[in-house]
Amino acid sequence: MTPFSEMTENNVEDPSKEHFLYSILNPKSLCFFGANNNLLKTMGSFQLWNIISEGFKGNIYPIHLREERVLGFKAYKTVLDLPEIPDLAMIVIPTRYIPEVMEECGQKGIKQLIITSGGFREIGPEGKKFSQQIDEIAGKYNMRFIGPNCLGVYNGWYQPENDKNKLNTFWVYKLPERGTISIASQSGTVASHLFWYAEDIGTKIGQSISLGNSNNIDIVDCLEYFKNDPHTDVLGLYIEEIKRGKEFISIAKEITPKKPIVAIYAGGTEAAFRAIGSHTGSIAGNDTIYETVFKETGIISTTSVTNFLHYLRVLSHGIFPKGNRIGIISDSGGASAMMAKSTERYGLQVPEFSNKLQSEISRVLTDISYPNNPVDLTFNLNQYNLYIKVPKLLMKSGEIDGIMIYGAFGVDEFIEVMEKSGFDTDFFSELGTSMSGVYLKPIQKLSRKYSIPIFYVGPQGYSDPWIREFIALNMPIFDLWDLPAKCMKILCQYSQYRQKFV
Amino acid sequence: MTPFSEMTENNVEDPSKEHFLYSILNPKSLCFFGANNNLLKTMGSFQLWNIISEGFKGNIYPIHLREERVLGFKAYKTVLDLPEIPDLAMIVIPTRYIPEVMEECGQKGIKQLIITSGGFREIGPEGKKFSQQIDEIAGKYNMRFIGPNCLGVYNGWYQPENDKNKLNTFWVYKLPERGTISIASQSGTVASHLFWYAEDIGTKIGQSISLGNSNNIDIVDCLEYFKNDPHTDVLGLYIEEIKRGKEFISIAKEITPKKPIVAIYAGGTEAAFRAIGSHTGSIAGNDTIYETVFKETGIISTTSVTNFLHYLRVLSHGIFPKGNRIGIISDSGGASAMMAKSTERYGLQVPEFSNKLQSEISRVLTDISYPNNPVDLTFNLNQYNLYIKVPKLLMKSGEIDGIMIYGAFGVDEFIEVMEKSGFDTDFFSELGTSMSGVYLKPIQKLSRKYSIPIFYVGPQGYSDPWIREFIALNMPIFDLWDLPAKCMKILCQYSQYRQKFV
Repeated sequence: MTPFSEMTENNVEDPSKEHFLYSILNPKSLCFFGANNNLLKTMGSFQLWNIISEGFKGNIYPIHLREERVLGFKAYKTVLDLPEIPDLAMIVIPTRYIPEVMEECGQKGIKQLIITSGGFREIGPEGKKFSQQIDEIAGKYNMRFIGPNCLGVYNGWYQPENDKNKLNTFWVYKLPERGTISIASQSGTVASHLFWYAEDIGTKIGQSISLGNSNNIDIVDCLEYFKNDPHTDVLGLYIEEIKRGKEFISIAKEITPKKPIVAIYAGGTEAAFRAIGSHTGSIAGNDTIYETVFKETGIISTTSVTNFLHYLRVLSHGIFPKGNRIGIISDSGGASAMMAKSTERYGLQVPEFSNKLQSEISRVLTDISYPNNPVDLTFNLNQYNLYIKVPKLLMKSGEIDGIMIYGAFGVDEFIEVMEKSGFDTDFFSELGTSMSGVYLKPIQKLSRKYSIPIFYVGPQGYSDPWIREFIALNMPIFDLWDLPAKCMKILCQYSQYRQKFV
Repeated sequence: MTPFSEMTENNVEDPSKEHFLYSILNPKSLCFFGANNNLLKTMGSFQLWNIISEGFKGNIYPIHLREERVLGFKAYKTVLDLPEIPDLAMIVIPTRYIPEVMEECGQKGIKQLIITSGGFREIGPEGKKFSQQIDEIAGKYNMRFIGPNCLGVYNGWYQPENDKNKLNTFWVYKLPERGTISIASQSGTVASHLFWYAEDIGTKIGQSISLGNSNNIDIVDCLEYFKNDPHTDVLGLYIEEIKRGKEFISIAKEITPKKPIVAIYAGGTEAAFRAIGSHTGSIAGNDTIYETVFKETGIISTTSVTNFLHYLRVLSHGIFPKGNRIGIISDSGGASAMMAKSTERYGLQVPEFSNKLQSEISRVLTDISYPNNPVDLTFNLNQYNLYIKVPKLLMKSGEIDGIMIYGAFGVDEFIEVMEKSGFDTDFFSELGTSMSGVYLKPIQKLSRKYSIPIFYVGPQGYSDPWIREFIALNMPIFDLWDLPAKCMKILCQYSQYRQKFV
């Protein structure tokens, strides 16, 4: 599959640039309310400092009544004094001062804002008053704002030609490698804290929007923007409440045939409603309503944040199976038995191979290996068989639509232990450095050619150097054998949905 | 709860020492068939070399027809030449030579063996013949053996007073820190490959037995041994087939009221049966039968290997809740909404707090925090509140039986980023080094006192230095917020089961 990004980038016109979210994600200049020079005491200072250190290259105007300079930048007493109209105002100050500051932004002609501060409808009647007030001011000046009660935005595509410079208004987080996954979330935590695990497993998030209370800009706006955004191939949503149901359904239906959407709905139980009420002040509905909406619109839903990240990851690789017949290859009987069981339980098939295919497999394996599905290589330690020869036979046979392989071992730990004992490790070391080119790239090429996804599973953690090779190449790798079957099911399910629209 | 190990170790008599598995796990001497000096070519060489390098301190006798020395040890042409009768013989040679070698072992008077080699009933009629042959020879000489088609044993308690020296007949694996979890597995992979993830999350496995085809020593033998073993508090089983059903049920019933058992049953679907048949030659039965057995015996079952390791971990900490009312504390609305939802979905309660408790919580938190369940600290960055004050109020209230806390952040990444930018990080650095004593130890003490388990969740991975502090102290920590509710449910369920026998 050609990534959608590539298809769109060739067009001269990029309709997403006309959307107001484009200016928020790609401001040329910004002013900042609520930062000073003390990182330890104020959240705003940390956010501005993060914007600076992550590589924002536009003009920065801190607004501060007393400071001459804030974090190295000239400070202004009021936004009205600024030498230009900034594309974005970021507001992280006590709630009661926000209406006044917004008025000034409106007078200055600023059209886009991010309001990080909380203390609005989520805290009850008094907050509700403030909430209405900021809505009215935004209406009066025709301003659009994200929040309140949010962390703002992360844009890894702030400079498309340079993935080092980002716009990041969040706190300090480990950033994932840039990819074409975009997140819109009513939880700042889901928008940002997931970055650690995402980076670990190779879920390459390019953009993330923390919507907070969604007073003005909501999840439908994000869908409208990401629909045409050339840097978005897959969307992830965290939902506490959908206010514009009709619009949500309509835009989601337009997107899912081209770009998969994975959604978490957090409401549905009593204590979850309390949590959501105190969180963003949303009025959550029951699970059934949301499940119906997700089903109708082709959205993939999950209640697990781990699955959320794994689904986004495998969907973003863009290799979709044509059916649901899965071939399993393993050097471990236990792992393959468990993978076979979970695959079948998720409604996929693990079909027996034809005699022809079995004898082809037998020809490359040793006596005590098992050539039927799941293929068991047992003590056949020829890695070339595991990575290339057997998978290739399966792909060419036309008998399977997806492959799962257990036993993707890196040799670094062996080398380390052997070196300690004075053994010669040249053989292993050479193997280690050449394996990515010899094993992974050729099989990935075939996987794309046949449109047969291949999932690798190795018992070592995601930090193992060999496992990082898979992640660098966007090849699906898992540390244990529970999730592959789940993820394969999602790929099959989405692929089937997508085929209806071809 | 006093760990069972401590209770038993005070007894002068340790009945487990009389069991034949004790001699296999704690041999004073061993002979080895199938090792030479070429690590790359033979599995046996790697296994013997691993036994040596992991710190086996007894006599080692390699048996080899041609070599004078093997891996530094004097080699003998036949076991009959040995100067003593070894406690254990390990056999990793081609199948067809095994009967002869076993005969010699029998003549020598060796009573315990591990047969790693495969090629028996799992490969069909010819293998079945060999299988019967080794059974007969074992019977004739009154020998007990593990296997065939297995990896052998790992015993971290080989020297109780020294956790550096182990008996490990597996390949090279990252070993988990020693604890009181014992594994008996019909899959060598489950017995050994899980060590990486176990070490990552702090599932402290002390012993692991890879049973293979279970011709002679089976899972019932392991249960009998671990029942009285002072170094076993929790048992993990991977099952492909239970041959002695009646004995299994009877011994499991004796164990579970005192030591929890977690089991994976790998059969139950068509392709899983094929995998199991080619793996250990077992005849797996349907899921319903096994589920009934597990239920009747109080065994906790799972089909997920990830859950298996997490369940073992939290059960091994030995803090069991008295009921199923769960309190949730978080600095993130999204995480707490999702935790609340999953907790309720697993049938636990997330009750509203009394007015009294709510006002006590309000007194320590800021205006915009939420004092009901789930407690939301939002931007209250006072870590003392998150770790100590609020949990303590919950524990003392008598209104909850278990606690889950989201937001267990380490500060190391902040320090690193701040240092790069030239900021003063003394405050954070001091905080980092003192936090374990200030936060974790006191709350752990309270948790034990009230018998209220506390689960911590932080978005950083298990390798983060702060997260390692939790693991070092045997405090349950999770990288994401999906598994805590599941694990808490298992704790509640087991605790309720256990109370019936008090």
